[in-house]
Amino acid sequence: MGETHTERRRRLAALLAERDADALLVTRLVNVRYLTGLDSSNAVLLVRADGPPVLATDGRYAEMAREVCPDLETVVERRAAEALTALAAESGARRLGFEAHDLTVERHAELVTEDMGIEFKPLGRPVEELRKVKDEDELALLREACAITDRAFDAVLPEIAPGRTERDIAIALERAMVDRGAERPAFESIVASGPNGAIPHHHPGARRIERGDLLTMDFGALYGGYHADMTRTVAIGEPAAWQRELYDLVRRAQRAAIKAAVPGAETTAVDAAARDVIKAAGHGAAFTHGLGHGVGLEIHEAPLMGYDRTGKLMDRVPVTAEPGVYLAGRGGVRIEDTLVVRAGGPELLTETTRELLVL
Amino acid sequence: MGETHTERRRRLAALLAERDADALLVTRLVNVRYLTGLDSSNAVLLVRADGPPVLATDGRYAEMAREVCPDLETVVERRAAEALTALAAESGARRLGFEAHDLTVERHAELVTEDMGIEFKPLGRPVEELRKVKDEDELALLREACAITDRAFDAVLPEIAPGRTERDIAIALERAMVDRGAERPAFESIVASGPNGAIPHHHPGARRIERGDLLTMDFGALYGGYHADMTRTVAIGEPAAWQRELYDLVRRAQRAAIKAAVPGAETTAVDAAARDVIKAAGHGAAFTHGLGHGVGLEIHEAPLMGYDRTGKLMDRVPVTAEPGVYLAGRGGVRIEDTLVVRAGGPELLTETTRELLVL
Repeated sequence: MGETHTERRRRLAALLAERDADALLVTRLVNVRYLTGLDSSNAVLLVRADGPPVLATDGRYAEMAREVCPDLETVVERRAAEALTALAAESGARRLGFEAHDLTVERHAELVTEDMGIEFKPLGRPVEELRKVKDEDELALLREACAITDRAFDAVLPEIAPGRTERDIAIALERAMVDRGAERPAFESIVASGPNGAIPHHHPGARRIERGDLLTMDFGALYGGYHADMTRTVAIGEPAAWQRELYDLVRRAQRAAIKAAVPGAETTAVDAAARDVIKAAGHGAAFTHGLGHGVGLEIHEAPLMGYDRTGKLMDRVPVTAEPGVYLAGRGGVRIEDTLVVRAGGPELLTETTRELLVL
Repeated sequence: MGETHTERRRRLAALLAERDADALLVTRLVNVRYLTGLDSSNAVLLVRADGPPVLATDGRYAEMAREVCPDLETVVERRAAEALTALAAESGARRLGFEAHDLTVERHAELVTEDMGIEFKPLGRPVEELRKVKDEDELALLREACAITDRAFDAVLPEIAPGRTERDIAIALERAMVDRGAERPAFESIVASGPNGAIPHHHPGARRIERGDLLTMDFGALYGGYHADMTRTVAIGEPAAWQRELYDLVRRAQRAAIKAAVPGAETTAVDAAARDVIKAAGHGAAFTHGLGHGVGLEIHEAPLMGYDRTGKLMDRVPVTAEPGVYLAGRGGVRIEDTLVVRAGGPELLTETTRELLVL
């Protein structure tokens, strides 16, 4: 992937020139990873409009950096941001962009107190902008992450039965993903049974699955740094009429959203496509979160899709579509897939059936 | 734990009065958890010097908040920090403290643009200061996290043999911890074999363990939100003389550090106790990181112990002691324990033998 990372840095450098900055201090770790391949807990990258980029990391990651990005000039220094700021100043940078959504007020104050004749400029989120549209290397990794997620669900399905705890199922799903090649779960799995289904982000606990429950499982595999995200709600035993109605409603809402997820669509409009269906059924207030979010090197990344999240979808942008309805004390339904926005219509990466499974 | 959380908020409120702030906007999620018990990805707490605290979280966590902290006034609002800032202003706060080490430059600019006649004051890290010294409830959770870590190591020991990959061992350790009651691993486990042992934060990979390797395993259990941290280096087959010497050196360095970890000790002095032993053997440059760090609701928290990290240890502060020596191309040794600083001498929470195990 060396060539890919070099290319990404070139695109960023071009963006800097447009934004009247001599360089950008990339402090957000996931952005450093995107631009270098290095997955570290302490690394900063200086990208210059003119001139080669420089990486700084501490002794723990020096050897790893030599392996992962041997072509990149690397400074080994624990105070990585300070080292690169000084280096930028020495090499004549006057307008140094920084990531205002990452740098804390405290770190910013530490960096700018030293008088180096540099103007610190918040530059927005240029790296996240680049990251939004994925290249085919990234999509291949995400596709595999989703395939592992599907296969894990298939493998665990026979184990889902009355008497098993939420935690049992969460562990079984996570192990099934790792056994099928996941680095690890992409996020903390949610397994919510019966009334717990009314809590969208329920932590899987000791409650045992009962006949008559709806069971919601929200999980995904991490593969090559890329995050899959899928939710399925299944019925334990023949569902009551209200349960089937709720499921069908959420299913219809999701279908409407997926259909609306085309290049050029406003993210608010995609959210509205699902939300309107749920509102029309009188459950608008019970859909308590946004429709979905971008996925990639982060489980939640741009573009966010909610009723008040503006922006446009584009070709090769992977997003989730995850409408849900949550009825306090009774339970809930959420159905979620990871898909890629494509000119020819969305490419669904998670392929597990969206029909109501009755176990 | 409701009473405990109330008590923690009271201690924080008292601190605010001393620092000339009417209130503190707690945005750091782990601090919100410490003060409320709520484990959420979007929650902010307003603690007032006079007057009851108020929590804000979004719809996904509203039900959870009602369960976890029913005594706490809660505002359900996605823009939680904005809601509480407005509320603070309405209720007459003039000096509103904020967490400058958490709030990004971008979020800070968003919050303070609105003219509400409020002065935003960075207040340092008052919640982290409270968190440094653990109460007995916390120590009990940490003790159990460490006990699970020990038991998992015992269980996996028979599986460590030539031919198994680093990843096999990492997965086995993580599963053994979860099977023994861990919520999940406290951090990404490190398993580094042979030459990979020279990379302190090596990601466990496909390399197969070979006779003649040193094998370093750095792992720990998360239990009740508290993080255990332990590292053991074992020999695969009878060790070479240099391997045994390196192990003995690190073992002596760790012993010196543990002995120095008493209430009132300077953290730099505890680091130096270990570092001096390693320096004297000519390996100073190969001990590329600090001696250790506090553990608790975070895997790395105050106090940090390094050659340039000032501060004093106190009774009931849990820390790690983890000296290491890394020889590029050859391998490395790290030995790490979690211990609690006590007036009567350190309480070692991880109890696995520190003698060199030859497998």
